[in-house]
Amino acid sequence: MTGASVSGAGVLRFRPSAGDYVWTFGGVPPVARVAPGTVLELFTEDCFAGRVRGVDDLVSRVVEFPFVNPQTGPFYVEGAEPGDTLAVHFVSLEPARDWAASTTVPLFGALTSTHATATLQPPLPEVVWIWQLDRERRLCRFESRFSEYTVDLPMDPMHGTVGVAPANLEARSSLVPDSHGGNMDTPEMRAGVTCYLGVNVEGALFSLGDGHARQGEGETCGVAVECAMDTVVIVDLIKGWPCPWPRLESDTHIMSTGSARPLEDAFRIAQLDLVQWLESDYGLPALDGYQLLSQAVEAPLANVVDTNYTSVAKIRKQWLPGSPAAGGVHTRLREQAAAYLASR
Amino acid sequence: MTGASVSGAGVLRFRPSAGDYVWTFGGVPPVARVAPGTVLELFTEDCFAGRVRGVDDLVSRVVEFPFVNPQTGPFYVEGAEPGDTLAVHFVSLEPARDWAASTTVPLFGALTSTHATATLQPPLPEVVWIWQLDRERRLCRFESRFSEYTVDLPMDPMHGTVGVAPANLEARSSLVPDSHGGNMDTPEMRAGVTCYLGVNVEGALFSLGDGHARQGEGETCGVAVECAMDTVVIVDLIKGWPCPWPRLESDTHIMSTGSARPLEDAFRIAQLDLVQWLESDYGLPALDGYQLLSQAVEAPLANVVDTNYTSVAKIRKQWLPGSPAAGGVHTRLREQAAAYLASR
Amino acid sequence: MTGASVSGAGVLRFRPSAGDYVWTFGGVPPVARVAPGTVLELFTEDCFAGRVRGVDDLVSRVVEFPFVNPQTGPFYVEGAEPGDTLAVHFVSLEPARDWAASTTVPLFGALTSTHATATLQPPLPEVVWIWQLDRERRLCRFESRFSEYTVDLPMDPMHGTVGVAPANLEARSSLVPDSHGGNMDTPEMRAGVTCYLGVNVEGALFSLGDGHARQGEGETCGVAVECAMDTVVIVDLIKGWPCPWPRLESDTHIMSTGSARPLEDAFRIAQLDLVQWLESDYGLPALDGYQLLSQAVEAPLANVVDTNYTSVAKIRKQWLPGSPAAGGVHTRLREQAAAYLASR
Amino acid sequence: MTGASVSGAGVLRFRPSAGDYVWTFGGVPPVARVAPGTVLELFTEDCFAGRVRGVDDLVSRVVEFPFVNPQTGPFYVEGAEPGDTLAVHFVSLEPARDWAASTTVPLFGALTSTHATATLQPPLPEVVWIWQLDRERRLCRFESRFSEYTVDLPMDPMHGTVGVAPANLEARSSLVPDSHGGNMDTPEMRAGVTCYLGVNVEGALFSLGDGHARQGEGETCGVAVECAMDTVVIVDLIKGWPCPWPRLESDTHIMSTGSARPLEDAFRIAQLDLVQWLESDYGLPALDGYQLLSQAVEAPLANVVDTNYTSVAKIRKQWLPGSPAAGGVHTRLREQAAAYLASR
Repeated sequence: MTGASVSGAGVLRFRPSAGDYVWTFGGVPPVARVAPGTVLELFTEDCFAGRVRGVDDLVSRVVEFPFVNPQTGPFYVEGAEPGDTLAVHFVSLEPARDWAASTTVPLFGALTSTHATATLQPPLPEVVWIWQLDRERRLCRFESRFSEYTVDLPMDPMHGTVGVAPANLEARSSLVPDSHGGNMDTPEMRAGVTCYLGVNVEGALFSLGDGHARQGEGETCGVAVECAMDTVVIVDLIKGWPCPWPRLESDTHIMSTGSARPLEDAFRIAQLDLVQWLESDYGLPALDGYQLLSQAVEAPLANVVDTNYTSVAKIRKQWLPGSPAAGGVHTRLREQAAAYLASR
Repeated sequence: MTGASVSGAGVLRFRPSAGDYVWTFGGVPPVARVAPGTVLELFTEDCFAGRVRGVDDLVSRVVEFPFVNPQTGPFYVEGAEPGDTLAVHFVSLEPARDWAASTTVPLFGALTSTHATATLQPPLPEVVWIWQLDRERRLCRFESRFSEYTVDLPMDPMHGTVGVAPANLEARSSLVPDSHGGNMDTPEMRAGVTCYLGVNVEGALFSLGDGHARQGEGETCGVAVECAMDTVVIVDLIKGWPCPWPRLESDTHIMSTGSARPLEDAFRIAQLDLVQWLESDYGLPALDGYQLLSQAVEAPLANVVDTNYTSVAKIRKQWLPGSPAAGGVHTRLREQAAAYLASR
Repeated sequence: MTGASVSGAGVLRFRPSAGDYVWTFGGVPPVARVAPGTVLELFTEDCFAGRVRGVDDLVSRVVEFPFVNPQTGPFYVEGAEPGDTLAVHFVSLEPARDWAASTTVPLFGALTSTHATATLQPPLPEVVWIWQLDRERRLCRFESRFSEYTVDLPMDPMHGTVGVAPANLEARSSLVPDSHGGNMDTPEMRAGVTCYLGVNVEGALFSLGDGHARQGEGETCGVAVECAMDTVVIVDLIKGWPCPWPRLESDTHIMSTGSARPLEDAFRIAQLDLVQWLESDYGLPALDGYQLLSQAVEAPLANVVDTNYTSVAKIRKQWLPGSPAAGGVHTRLREQAAAYLASR
Repeated sequence: MTGASVSGAGVLRFRPSAGDYVWTFGGVPPVARVAPGTVLELFTEDCFAGRVRGVDDLVSRVVEFPFVNPQTGPFYVEGAEPGDTLAVHFVSLEPARDWAASTTVPLFGALTSTHATATLQPPLPEVVWIWQLDRERRLCRFESRFSEYTVDLPMDPMHGTVGVAPANLEARSSLVPDSHGGNMDTPEMRAGVTCYLGVNVEGALFSLGDGHARQGEGETCGVAVECAMDTVVIVDLIKGWPCPWPRLESDTHIMSTGSARPLEDAFRIAQLDLVQWLESDYGLPALDGYQLLSQAVEAPLANVVDTNYTSVAKIRKQWLPGSPAAGGVHTRLREQAAAYLASR
């Protein structure tokens, strides 16, 4: 294994070489075995494998399918078995370069026909935008390609792709979001958040990639402000707490996700999972949870462009009955992250 | 006409009697003619026509279809012609009673089969929740029906249904959202916001109803915290500025809406309309607008339960090139509203 | 009323003048009152109102919205009340001219983006095909526009649009298919078939139009081999037999229809209606009907292009328990049609 | 390899033992290498792995996920490379037992909520139907479970699942239909038909399973008349003729398939592929093909229940310009099949 080194008790640093990346969830051997509670200091390449560096680097020319959306991992988490859940806490996400790229991709995106929403129309023009990242001031600069307009947007780093090996003996492309996680593309996957992923195979086989300096809800053109990322996560294990769809927890909210087509099915999955989570962990009867959610939920779209669309259902923890989710693992990981950051 | 009285220059007060409500957009004569700029002081009944007052008032027993979702109006706006746009500014929304109602409705809602998503399963149980409204503290109290849990949520009054007569010689049920507006059910339709509605017939024939003390994004169970509302709007007219889908403007954002099924089509409509709005009013070339939106848009769901689903595309005005939308009508109406409120 | 004349006991002949056509279901007064059992000898104009006569007659130039898809009617059927069902038996359909027209329409059709499936791509080119109809040999001649290829297809005349006034106080464009019928565009609507339409308003207000010399399943480009039609129907009334969605009966099959988006919902509606029809009229328990249907149903698509998509669920009568649908009305109308044709 | 034996020049007989079945397309090694033109005499187990044998054998009790829908194969076809296409000709399909099984499966099927179309409703009851197969008279007997009704339907054997290893380094469950084929569940996959499958990996890795004694269009309850099958296919290779989606050819028709959600996307894919096939192989310009298809296509639904829905687009060869598809491979395989059958 190239680039992996245990730099201290419970900290693993892994910076993949070109040949170390993987392009699927499932179907590939782990790059390392880690104990629950390990801090992972990772480098992730951007979704173009770093090949789009200027406005002339059209994806159709420089990227070779299926070698798109490289993932760092997978990591075998010791003791993880089907029926358990991985808790992945995002300690920090820092863009690794001072620029990022976005682009239209022929027959991909929400405002174009696609290989699935198939029409006789020609594809949209292929255009690349290079975004300048001011990492100190936490800004991303948009530069119009067809006018003089520029504007600075706040940086809000996130990972588009986070997941484990899927169930049913499958291996899925890293472009796909589904119940194993994968390419969900939700801006909620930011520092300070814990992501819960149900374990489908022994060791879970966790990997991540697809850093975005920022992204709009729905990822309209299909491509965010794509950048390489230096990311620190803590990977923990919750035994015997199944998690049917990826869930997230921040200091203020719990969130369920659903990934499916059509988009209303993604919405239904996320909303139903949240109702059922409120029932199982918070003791709120299902119909009461349905009613409370109907008035209290936020439903930010993640992506409306990928193989499956992803919807998030999000509710404030202060509005819920007392007990913390999964026995308070988020709070504990928050503290471990603070200790790690203080010691760095 | 019952209940309408012009109470001063440019102010019309209209409190409908039981027989005054209408149940469609289009197909009914106006209750009054108003000049552009008129302040309308309106009362709207709740979507149950006020018939659900306690937990035993099941919709299937007390509400008689199609007499559901009563609208106050329509108002004939002088000078309004196809190709123009109505600007409806929401000055204030105040729940008219100290309680509100919500309920499951058989075969209606996102987490049940419906008459369209038709299955062999029996409907969910019909349950009513009565919410207490603390209008002074601006709180809505949820009381669980199947446990002891209660919680206070912030009040955030909105109108679910706002629209004009549709095009194509149609009359549409007030339960339907489409390009004429109607039952869009977006929480963005709150005080301080201007709603733009393209005019389809002479006089536009504007009406509104379906007040909600608050609502989650997507309106999961299909019914919000439904309440009668005392609402003040200013109705203005923008000549020669067409508006293909309902748009909204707040002090901070401009927003497009789309209503369609499946939900991704509602998303596409709203996002495309916003790209085209950025091009026509702000001079941003379409592909640049597509890219900027992809990184900057918020996409809060309105409803995923009605005849058409409604999606909102929302962007901060501070991130856009200078010119204000529609020549600054929102700012002007904001000032008129402030003057009205000061004089009251 | 222009053009209507009772030409004998129980036969009404109606050939509309230009101003007699209607463009909606609902919202318009009847052109005639007829007793149940009346034979209607009708002329229907093509969906372009006869304005596309050559390959240079582009729809965007010669057709003025919303004056598209003209309907002949509506007819007030005496005694028809909500809860009853109209039985419309198609005695004969004869193309009224020796040519027909088809075309692409900008942003309309299955293999293009549309106003709902909205993209940034420009529309497809607008192209007209004129089909020659050989009424004696019952053939329609396709002539390629961009090559020399021609081919004769069998004529199979049908009506794309058949319906009654909708429920819920609505008026719907004649371009819309829904539970009131309307623009379903199913090739099953041919001579020899009885169409059942649930009555929503007093008198039912039946009308029809949109003749096709033939059409593929799904009506891919959105436009069939459009022609004016000389059509004879018998309109009968079934008291107290509700019909939630349009149903059809031929000598060999019974069929249910569903119209909705996405297409799977249209499929679900039609299939569920057929299961419930098998239960109510044929005594087959619902789960047994579900199983039998799963192995025996044909599911020809009608349209995948209109405001709602339309799916048909079709099962052979010989595979069903004995009793005929609706008390044998189809057989009786078949006999009345034969007698009428013999006497002509 | 168990059970495989080359029984003569160009004939391979393979009857898998219990441990020989595979449950995915991709991700498993081949059971045999075969030369193009080889006749395969195969046994396929039913989708329940033979475990549902009576009305008390509920799937939820006797079937262990993911060991459902066993496939016979995969076969490595020598010389097959990405860019080529496999031609699989169905010589004969004979049910291997005198009974077959069908069932409802909890949260699976078109007329129930599912894991994707997620609702709060409980699943439908789990019911098994055992069908008696009269192989001599080619009949399948339906026996109602909740009434006395029985009826004989014609036997029409088909394979629900036929495919090759997918692209993009993926392995997909045998329950999934996609561009690699898989669980398409189309009744068109019957004896006398040639199925074309684009090759994604070296050797193609073809397998098949999921025999149905018959099936309705759409496979409404999600389960057909499931039976073990003795099947003979000839596997041939077409070099340098890419096939983006599975295509079929019978003596009378050519057909394209599309598998996606929502169902209209499956329809679009199949229709567009057929237009493009007409252009590339028959020389019909795309817009002319679009028009011809719109009037001439049949669009029988395959399944509206699986992970992706499958739609077929089908046109009569007699209506097309002269040249046969893929250089006449179907005719040649037809002749080889006749010779094989004559010699048996």
